Amino acid sequence: MGFNSSKGPSFFDLLTSQADQLVIGVDLLRTLFSAPEDERKALRKRLHEIENTGDELNHQLINKLNQSFITPFDREDLSDLASALDDCMDLFDEAGDLLVLYQVDNIPEPVDGLLSRQIDVLTKCAKLTAENMPKLKRPQDLRDYWVEINRLENDGDKAYRKTLKHLFDTGLDPVTIIKLKDIVEVLEKCTDAFEDLANTVESIAVKES
Amino acid sequence: MGFNSSKGPSFFDLLTSQADQLVIGVDLLRTLFSAPEDERKALRKRLHEIENTGDELNHQLINKLNQSFITPFDREDLSDLASALDDCMDLFDEAGDLLVLYQVDNIPEPVDGLLSRQIDVLTKCAKLTAENMPKLKRPQDLRDYWVEINRLENDGDKAYRKTLKHLFDTGLDPVTIIKLKDIVEVLEKCTDAFEDLANTVESIAVKES
Amino acid sequence: MGFNSSKGPSFFDLLTSQADQLVIGVDLLRTLFSAPEDERKALRKRLHEIENTGDELNHQLINKLNQSFITPFDREDLSDLASALDDCMDLFDEAGDLLVLYQVDNIPEPVDGLLSRQIDVLTKCAKLTAENMPKLKRPQDLRDYWVEINRLENDGDKAYRKTLKHLFDTGLDPVTIIKLKDIVEVLEKCTDAFEDLANTVESIAVKES
Repeated sequence: MGFNSSKGPSFFDLLTSQADQLVIGVDLLRTLFSAPEDERKALRKRLHEIENTGDELNHQLINKLNQSFITPFDREDLSDLASALDDCMDLFDEAGDLLVLYQVDNIPEPVDGLLSRQIDVLTKCAKLTAENMPKLKRPQDLRDYWVEINRLENDGDKAYRKTLKHLFDTGLDPVTIIKLKDIVEVLEKCTDAFEDLANTVESIAVKES
Repeated sequence: MGFNSSKGPSFFDLLTSQADQLVIGVDLLRTLFSAPEDERKALRKRLHEIENTGDELNHQLINKLNQSFITPFDREDLSDLASALDDCMDLFDEAGDLLVLYQVDNIPEPVDGLLSRQIDVLTKCAKLTAENMPKLKRPQDLRDYWVEINRLENDGDKAYRKTLKHLFDTGLDPVTIIKLKDIVEVLEKCTDAFEDLANTVESIAVKES
Repeated sequence: MGFNSSKGPSFFDLLTSQADQLVIGVDLLRTLFSAPEDERKALRKRLHEIENTGDELNHQLINKLNQSFITPFDREDLSDLASALDDCMDLFDEAGDLLVLYQVDNIPEPVDGLLSRQIDVLTKCAKLTAENMPKLKRPQDLRDYWVEINRLENDGDKAYRKTLKHLFDTGLDPVTIIKLKDIVEVLEKCTDAFEDLANTVESIAVKES
């Protein structure tokens, strides 16, 4: 046993697969965002399926932890990474749910454009994460990854605040503003979740160094 | 000294007592939810008292940690469990405060029924937690507990989103919608707190396995 | 090397400097809160600068961790402290941004007075934190600090709920209520962040005891 076990995927394989699901997830989220209303439920269903796949990978990792005598990092660190990846996916899923639930259409500019800028940031975060998870074996080498994610989170933050400001200036009815504000905020939480993941990687690097 | 110490309650006794307070707390929350306005302040006062009892148990556990040479789990894990239990109670208390503070009455259906469905989920979470804390000695055996709490959290999530959707369809004035949305959201946070607690137990099981 | 290293500030020096920035930050926040609109952007710029200084101190500490063979506490604990201090500053910064972004003026009493009471609590939290960080070498001696921060957080909580209640009674338009509610809530999150920091100190004391 242990992490060299030939049986099944390694811890790094499982974390990488979770990250790959995030790339698929954010792509579905973007499609959902601009999809006509009658297609949204089907897209949300697919997003739920991706989220379930992520959950299963998370639990596979926990089970592997239970069966392994030797682990590449501390057990808690591996489960922290898996649950940080899971948090990102849960928030994509929540964003997708709100888009279907609130049925907000013809979002006026610049709000619509700013929302998709938030999704752009999330797409970059997901891709960067998927590129770097396979290199986790040497967390100290991932410095560029966590620095870039922190930079992206700052961009996301700016987009978020700009969106809020313009949202209040739209003169839309208060209830629509409340709904759009929820969507803006869940997208912001997604970026924060990617930052939390990057910070987890950074703190593992600190420990392992 | 150590966890076999005959002086006073064991760590498991203290965590179990905290969980028992949660069962009393959620019960008060339900009563408060459906109580006539003139009875609410008295009920909130009792909820505050329960919350204080929970705090005291939390601090007793921390003090016991300070006095114990041997602990059944890592010190941090025991304090994490105590504060996770405390978080659940703080959110019950917050929910109770909002119910009194916002004085929202005659909540229209289906919102009223959906809110009490959220409280049903919380009641199940609290009872399940209280049943399982005494078995903490062997966290690996609590798999059914954390799986069920995660399932309940998903139910709570569905109830939460359904409530939001219907809330926006009520045609209530925006300010009432904002208030009710706060209440729906704090109840959702309570379910999340029970999930966090269950995840803490799961990660201890992983470590101890 | 190690924490007796004569090269550069010690871990405790760095954490203390981060705390000192919080005192400057909360002071700017108060000035910003009562400043005429045309001065706010300049004040926010200064608040951003303070936030950047905090970030740099945070990263200095992480780098020092990477270079130190011996650390006064576990590596994770030191990085947890640094990031808890950073969270407080990020929330000050966010509060400042909202004050500029939302351009809410002539806030009616008692809301205006209650908002500055929330800032009073934050000022006390920041000062108390800055006074106590230099004593971190013996975390067990900081009991009064974390007890007092928890007490202040309870005061903040009361102020927060009272503010919400009165906010809804102002009869302001819903959009202004949403904006002010955001500001009230970010100030409440700041107090929570100071409590999280104090709890981190407490849990280190528990471990080190």
